[in-house]
Amino acid sequence: MAKRRRLTHVAPGGSPRMVDVGAKPVTRRAAVAEAWVTLGAEAAALLRRTGAVAKGNVLETARLAGIAAAKHTALLIPLCHPIPLDHVEVRASLLGRRVHIQAKVAAEAKTGVEMEAMTAAAVAALTVYDMVKSAGKGAHIGPVRLLEKAGGKSGAWRRGEDDNGAR
Amino acid sequence: MAKRRRLTHVAPGGSPRMVDVGAKPVTRRAAVAEAWVTLGAEAAALLRRTGAVAKGNVLETARLAGIAAAKHTALLIPLCHPIPLDHVEVRASLLGRRVHIQAKVAAEAKTGVEMEAMTAAAVAALTVYDMVKSAGKGAHIGPVRLLEKAGGKSGAWRRGEDDNGAR
Amino acid sequence: MAKRRRLTHVAPGGSPRMVDVGAKPVTRRAAVAEAWVTLGAEAAALLRRTGAVAKGNVLETARLAGIAAAKHTALLIPLCHPIPLDHVEVRASLLGRRVHIQAKVAAEAKTGVEMEAMTAAAVAALTVYDMVKSAGKGAHIGPVRLLEKAGGKSGAWRRGEDDNGAR
Amino acid sequence: MAKRRRLTHVAPGGSPRMVDVGAKPVTRRAAVAEAWVTLGAEAAALLRRTGAVAKGNVLETARLAGIAAAKHTALLIPLCHPIPLDHVEVRASLLGRRVHIQAKVAAEAKTGVEMEAMTAAAVAALTVYDMVKSAGKGAHIGPVRLLEKAGGKSGAWRRGEDDNGAR
Amino acid sequence: MAKRRRLTHVAPGGSPRMVDVGAKPVTRRAAVAEAWVTLGAEAAALLRRTGAVAKGNVLETARLAGIAAAKHTALLIPLCHPIPLDHVEVRASLLGRRVHIQAKVAAEAKTGVEMEAMTAAAVAALTVYDMVKSAGKGAHIGPVRLLEKAGGKSGAWRRGEDDNGAR
Amino acid sequence: MAKRRRLTHVAPGGSPRMVDVGAKPVTRRAAVAEAWVTLGAEAAALLRRTGAVAKGNVLETARLAGIAAAKHTALLIPLCHPIPLDHVEVRASLLGRRVHIQAKVAAEAKTGVEMEAMTAAAVAALTVYDMVKSAGKGAHIGPVRLLEKAGGKSGAWRRGEDDNGAR
Repeated sequence: MAKRRRLTHVAPGGSPRMVDVGAKPVTRRAAVAEAWVTLGAEAAALLRRTGAVAKGNVLETARLAGIAAAKHTALLIPLCHPIPLDHVEVRASLLGRRVHIQAKVAAEAKTGVEMEAMTAAAVAALTVYDMVKSAGKGAHIGPVRLLEKAGGKSGAWRRGEDDNGAR
Repeated sequence: MAKRRRLTHVAPGGSPRMVDVGAKPVTRRAAVAEAWVTLGAEAAALLRRTGAVAKGNVLETARLAGIAAAKHTALLIPLCHPIPLDHVEVRASLLGRRVHIQAKVAAEAKTGVEMEAMTAAAVAALTVYDMVKSAGKGAHIGPVRLLEKAGGKSGAWRRGEDDNGAR
Repeated sequence: MAKRRRLTHVAPGGSPRMVDVGAKPVTRRAAVAEAWVTLGAEAAALLRRTGAVAKGNVLETARLAGIAAAKHTALLIPLCHPIPLDHVEVRASLLGRRVHIQAKVAAEAKTGVEMEAMTAAAVAALTVYDMVKSAGKGAHIGPVRLLEKAGGKSGAWRRGEDDNGAR
Repeated sequence: MAKRRRLTHVAPGGSPRMVDVGAKPVTRRAAVAEAWVTLGAEAAALLRRTGAVAKGNVLETARLAGIAAAKHTALLIPLCHPIPLDHVEVRASLLGRRVHIQAKVAAEAKTGVEMEAMTAAAVAALTVYDMVKSAGKGAHIGPVRLLEKAGGKSGAWRRGEDDNGAR
Repeated sequence: MAKRRRLTHVAPGGSPRMVDVGAKPVTRRAAVAEAWVTLGAEAAALLRRTGAVAKGNVLETARLAGIAAAKHTALLIPLCHPIPLDHVEVRASLLGRRVHIQAKVAAEAKTGVEMEAMTAAAVAALTVYDMVKSAGKGAHIGPVRLLEKAGGKSGAWRRGEDDNGAR
Repeated sequence: MAKRRRLTHVAPGGSPRMVDVGAKPVTRRAAVAEAWVTLGAEAAALLRRTGAVAKGNVLETARLAGIAAAKHTALLIPLCHPIPLDHVEVRASLLGRRVHIQAKVAAEAKTGVEMEAMTAAAVAALTVYDMVKSAGKGAHIGPVRLLEKAGGKSGAWRRGEDDNGAR
């Protein structure tokens, strides 16, 4: 029942806290997140026009920034646990005027890797923005959202067709 | 003319590059970015129900994470310049089911602080997501976007009413 | 016998060294440390006068800085091992003119988490100092000390009533 | 008058904030802080007995950790500004059963370097603790305190004989 | 057959990628790397002439920088996995006009620690260069190379007498 | 005369120290360093055979790692000053069996950027090693060396044809 639920990152007295994962078993964890960057017409055209190599390199730079960011997650997100990661994969592609980024993270850990995937996707998107902003500051990022997770007590979760942030 | 323009972060041969700001004068720079987090109904209710202190603390945690992230920008975004910052201000408020984050950064530097503002806003949003995800993984982040900038050769810029990423 | 003992972090030849924990079993580790900040009368009054919210926020900021610092320990303390952490908890309260900080860290690891607790407490105290120094640079930090530890070959340890740094 | 004063790091509404130093002139800044570590008798004897080289190396390790920590200050202390540093000097000496650490930092900046000096001193002290704790966990750190500062609008400040945290 | 081999860090489509170590067992890993710094005659003489303490301290500083660098490896090398380390040992000695650095790293992990050893050796060498460059910028670093590794599916490897980079 | 010279990074008493640059004027600084990676025949063939895209991406990854490393220099090299950078450029090319890396750094600062260039080159080389080591651990790095510098009191310096580390 909702009334009994509370945010696990907030102590009864109202203070933010790190969740104690000491009693949790180490299990295989995975998470997938995505981020979109909507470019202005000119930036998208420039990104496409510069050809396969340059486009690849902008997107490759974003991919590498995302991978590095996953490794920085616990230093960026105050209540995240530092955990070793088995794998970080970031894909990036230009679809029309939008760049689509997908980040997939895996670990064997006591806690999930959702934030690593979300952080990787978000920083990859910020990197795309950084590299195209000379051709239009109006580009915007979003949505950045979790697509699926696996492992842990709460088990598998997958975003539904109608998840407008309401689950 | 658009044909002559190119992405400043991509060298003629297609490689990503850091822009050389050596010849630029040091001027006062400012940038404002925003990020939105759309929560599920339950997470929003919990955030509200936990009362002023707890809500404040979730949002305060996000604000502090945003300020810290601004200082990490050059370590996260591959082609950003490391610059001293004069000020980072991050605001966060709960509006209905959405958390609104606004980040404002100022510096005296040879290059702009747009990415610092964007990174602060994005990481503050990621922190909100981290802290409410136990009440609904479906929350999503976006848009993350620049609202205005000032200083530098390209001068002042402000997002227009109709900027759908098209400028 | 004392003569045979030596500092484990100093090699026979006199060089500082990291202890090799390769042969140690992974066990549950915990450590609690505290730090005190003694404020001047005015700073303490201001901290109290600004009311529950502001006082809370100064102390909340310190708490979050302490948690983040625990995660930075191996990057700050030259001979510390980088280890994943299960939990970091930092409490802070204003007692008269003194701020009391208590940091508790837990992990399953081959080595103890005393330094993570000590670092969390010390950085939380530095953060309090930073935030009140405009009302009096004379505030001072101390003692910062370990209160207890558990786990590992040397087992449990608890500071005695009469431990004036002599154990 | 005290009633009108408030903590510069707390906004009128109670939120922690970074001070905006944008309007401040760049001036030469300096700060000196100290930290003490009181060792147990055995740890002090071991530190002394291991001879000049080993003692030197423990203290040298602490010195280097302090210098590195000064460079990490803005990443550790949430509301500190990142600034380039002209000089960091850390001294460490064994006086009886106590290790004395003194950290001196200088910069040309819009804001002071007190926190850099305090952080350097504190982390050097933590490093000493780390290296001697195998010979006695009861060692404690403190006081860590500012001794003097110079530069900036508030000008020079020097700790008085009778400053018990009351200035 | 060589034709079938490919670089594990490059995906079939040509993109750099992190290797997924999720299915690998955790085993004991070790790696040894070395780095050489060839000094000019004057720098070598100064390093020797300043006597045992100073020479020791230059080399001790390099050793500590190497240990710290091993802990930074995953933040520096884009496709490296972040892993807890059991041990990092760095030796440094002056042999004629050359400084010899040897770094040895051990961990229990799903992936090897070759890069941690290589990074420790290289950063220790850079530190030596930094500290002697005032006496001759012409000093150079190299070779930096792996000497041996143990653990993991590919098992033990040891550099042969005639390995001119050809294995 | 050589006898009067000493290492600026070593205090008269033998301790390593950061050079105080407080009295130095801010001037334009530049430095160029190079690093070589000698690959085994198979790794070189694989790198070439994977074609322009893959080769480009291995080298692009190394370039980006070098740029990021330049920004990490003060966190890696104990006695380096943290300074804002105007430009970091890293080139990488495959010449026969050797990868050639060239790093060029510029800043307006009180101290030189030699270490930033050296660190960028070395970390780019380590990244190449990381990405090709699955095809031959015998690859080695070296020389890593400064090619030229400009700016500052000591003025311009350029490596001579016959500089075998002897200047």
